[in-house]
Amino acid sequence: MTPVHSLTSPLSSSSPARALSGLPKGKMTENGMASRGKVLTIDTMNPTVKKVEYAVRGPIVQRAVQLEKELREGAKKPFAEVIKANIGDAHAMGQQPITFFRQVLALCSYPELLNDSTFPEDAKSRARRILQSCGGSSIGAYSASQGIDCVRQDVARYIEQRDGGIPCDPDNIYLTTGASDGIVTMLKLLVCGEGKSRTGVMISIPQYPLYSAALAELGAVQINYYLNEEKCWSLDISELQRALDEARRHCNPRALCIINPGNPTGQVQSRQCIEDVIRFAAKERLLLMADEVYQDNVYADGCKFHSFKKVLFEMGPEFSNNVELASFHSTSKCYMGECGFRGGYMEIINMDAEVKAQLTKLVSVRLCPPVPGQALMDLVVNCPQPGEPSYNNFMKERTATLGVLAEKAKLTEQILNTVPGISCNPVQGAMYSFPRITIPEKAIREAKEKGQAPDMLYCMKLLEETGICLVPGSGFGQKEGTYHFRMTILPATDKLKILLSKVKEFHQKFTQQYS
Amino acid sequence: MTPVHSLTSPLSSSSPARALSGLPKGKMTENGMASRGKVLTIDTMNPTVKKVEYAVRGPIVQRAVQLEKELREGAKKPFAEVIKANIGDAHAMGQQPITFFRQVLALCSYPELLNDSTFPEDAKSRARRILQSCGGSSIGAYSASQGIDCVRQDVARYIEQRDGGIPCDPDNIYLTTGASDGIVTMLKLLVCGEGKSRTGVMISIPQYPLYSAALAELGAVQINYYLNEEKCWSLDISELQRALDEARRHCNPRALCIINPGNPTGQVQSRQCIEDVIRFAAKERLLLMADEVYQDNVYADGCKFHSFKKVLFEMGPEFSNNVELASFHSTSKCYMGECGFRGGYMEIINMDAEVKAQLTKLVSVRLCPPVPGQALMDLVVNCPQPGEPSYNNFMKERTATLGVLAEKAKLTEQILNTVPGISCNPVQGAMYSFPRITIPEKAIREAKEKGQAPDMLYCMKLLEETGICLVPGSGFGQKEGTYHFRMTILPATDKLKILLSKVKEFHQKFTQQYS
Repeated sequence: MTPVHSLTSPLSSSSPARALSGLPKGKMTENGMASRGKVLTIDTMNPTVKKVEYAVRGPIVQRAVQLEKELREGAKKPFAEVIKANIGDAHAMGQQPITFFRQVLALCSYPELLNDSTFPEDAKSRARRILQSCGGSSIGAYSASQGIDCVRQDVARYIEQRDGGIPCDPDNIYLTTGASDGIVTMLKLLVCGEGKSRTGVMISIPQYPLYSAALAELGAVQINYYLNEEKCWSLDISELQRALDEARRHCNPRALCIINPGNPTGQVQSRQCIEDVIRFAAKERLLLMADEVYQDNVYADGCKFHSFKKVLFEMGPEFSNNVELASFHSTSKCYMGECGFRGGYMEIINMDAEVKAQLTKLVSVRLCPPVPGQALMDLVVNCPQPGEPSYNNFMKERTATLGVLAEKAKLTEQILNTVPGISCNPVQGAMYSFPRITIPEKAIREAKEKGQAPDMLYCMKLLEETGICLVPGSGFGQKEGTYHFRMTILPATDKLKILLSKVKEFHQKFTQQYS
Repeated sequence: MTPVHSLTSPLSSSSPARALSGLPKGKMTENGMASRGKVLTIDTMNPTVKKVEYAVRGPIVQRAVQLEKELREGAKKPFAEVIKANIGDAHAMGQQPITFFRQVLALCSYPELLNDSTFPEDAKSRARRILQSCGGSSIGAYSASQGIDCVRQDVARYIEQRDGGIPCDPDNIYLTTGASDGIVTMLKLLVCGEGKSRTGVMISIPQYPLYSAALAELGAVQINYYLNEEKCWSLDISELQRALDEARRHCNPRALCIINPGNPTGQVQSRQCIEDVIRFAAKERLLLMADEVYQDNVYADGCKFHSFKKVLFEMGPEFSNNVELASFHSTSKCYMGECGFRGGYMEIINMDAEVKAQLTKLVSVRLCPPVPGQALMDLVVNCPQPGEPSYNNFMKERTATLGVLAEKAKLTEQILNTVPGISCNPVQGAMYSFPRITIPEKAIREAKEKGQAPDMLYCMKLLEETGICLVPGSGFGQKEGTYHFRMTILPATDKLKILLSKVKEFHQKFTQQYS
């Protein structure tokens, strides 16, 4: 547990002078603080920050940005452009925004446009509703810390519809600055204790590195459970049990994080599996955190998104009245891909009332999530309905985007599986493929000599030779002795085909070179 | 120092399995974790979060929101509306956004409008420039974690112009999610050590409670230095020295935070004072954090905003090459008042290169600041220039807004000083008045019996009787035995007059009642 020293607290009703005033006055002796070197150095900075790693924007991406700059400056490279398939950034890869969403955002930004007859009426009515719920009818006003009331109401109604009528209380909805913000906030609430009592949090391996980064920063214990690559990255309860039992010797496991559909692994959990996970969490007294930002990104036949909330409530009051659940959604993924707006929400179920008050207080320190992101979140959960003027076009755009993603998911799996030494599970959902790659012993030795992960060596060479930017599996965690990379399926189909054929060619060359 | 336990790190090149695999397997004994009660309770949550306080959105504001609801539902109250003067939220109080800014934001949101002939050309060219620097020409794409390149370049140019040509490197600019985000991030970097080695951070009292909240959450030591109310809330170096010397017995003071113009106290620091502070920081080896979000909000004759950066560089290389400085700005205050967009930047000077790399890594975990906020920050630092079509209207709007604020600053001071028992320093800058109020002994006793700060009792009664929402001085810190409230000068002039006369009437009644 972080010790909190506060000599003085100006926020109590008594004056902060008191704590210090009891101290005798006196001259400070020479304390060796004479001006040599910096105040803040790598040796005197926060050690937990140093432990943070975030591969999705790590050294490989920095090198990719540098290469782009070199290309712009006319450098000769074996490729004409850098293709970044390292991050789920749909618009950057050419996906077009949903027209309706952007119309409403323009109306909210510049309400003069409400007089413009070229904007459809449903866009105007959405904008009016959002503006009316903003202080001074401006998205430039702070909102309530928990988020704009009417947006939270719309989110609640959306969740109810999604989950077949299971009730949702707007008071349990917190709007967030992207899903990351919500996840970090929940983890922050959970962390306490020292030594063997220190909070442990279970995360899947492979994982999305926000989790490990947040846990490192908070000084919590990361408990790894392994997804089963042989069974399409499924989650085995026996593996959860193994990880938990072992961790209990060293820490106090209190939460279990699930990403469904999976990032970086692209699996979609079955309803049965979710039920088993909930049963496990109930039995072992773990708070569940369900990262469901890819809830619309389900492509494979026979796969369907089931929310943890819905399954929890269908399991009956024994579970729905007891299991603590936080689930997360975002404007950044699905068919919207609006990452730049940093919109999102979390829903909390069965949270202790006093803890909830603390959560509300904690989020108030940052004042409010960005209001344009809140407005966008509102549009996602309150999209055009049949009969409204924008409905047809909205559905056309939405369906086309999801259709293309489904195609690219299939294409990626198929082409990668034609490469000897690469094997790729079906991309059932989300936006990523996480294929396993065989790396020759000689390359592994070379990497180890360089102090590099073998798949980092692989991806770095791939980038230098082809301009393709992927993230090594070591950035997400993987079973010892296995190697992977994560690539997004987001590049436009023609570009994706080029990318895949270049990866194929590179892999064959790399394998030869190190044989 | 927060101990970091990580049983396994999936981010190292070796597998995370290793750390756990060495453990002997075995059945867990009964560990008392059977399902009673919640996993997360007030007793088992993060204790540092519990210590966080944030008065600006505290109990008084919650009650104000409740009263608003009761009024809407037809409840009878001694007032017709709640007037919130608790928070610097300009648009909520009726201030109009700058037309040019909102035109550009609409164009960025819905680029179809670039074909609309009613938008001015300079708005279109700004929008095109911003869009071209976004991935896929969409503000829905993630930006670089440090912020969009061209925005950082514009910020650097703006700072150079503001500071009379002192160079600014765009690489030292980090765009942020409002100034709060930048401040918390810098504090996070600084915190380390245990016991007497624990990082201490000097903050002014009265302070803006973001500082105390962040320090509590980070478990750092808050070191209070008192502003001199008798000299218009000025900063005395001797008081800095006293606070520092006393703190050195208990912790390791490493940073000094200044808010200029002041929040909640509204003072504007003289150039001489800033020079003295810099000299003090250099002598005592403190990193300087300059919160300069009110840099355009200077009203009093003879007062002028001097940036810490400029003064630092004018003091010569002995200082400009050595003193570590982080300064903060935002889109939320000044004449813009665009709080909802959560835009901001920080500039870092003389930061150690390795620490800077850590900072860049740390901000990457949250992916990027909201892009609409970045776009808005760009417009603030790259506003219409003479000769551009929007220049005249922009200047008219800007001048009018700042002019009205200056009037209201004067009005507030004047009216409050007519009330016996209230004394108010001139509101030289920022957006707040922080008058001292005399509270009768009987009221102090009553408050203490209720376990309340006396000025909380005062403000709560004011709210219940008049509908006026202010924040008690105890939420910002004040000398023992003194009482204050903070009120913003933001309500429209006619409303502000009503507010001030109601405060006057209330104060007289309150004083009588408790005499």
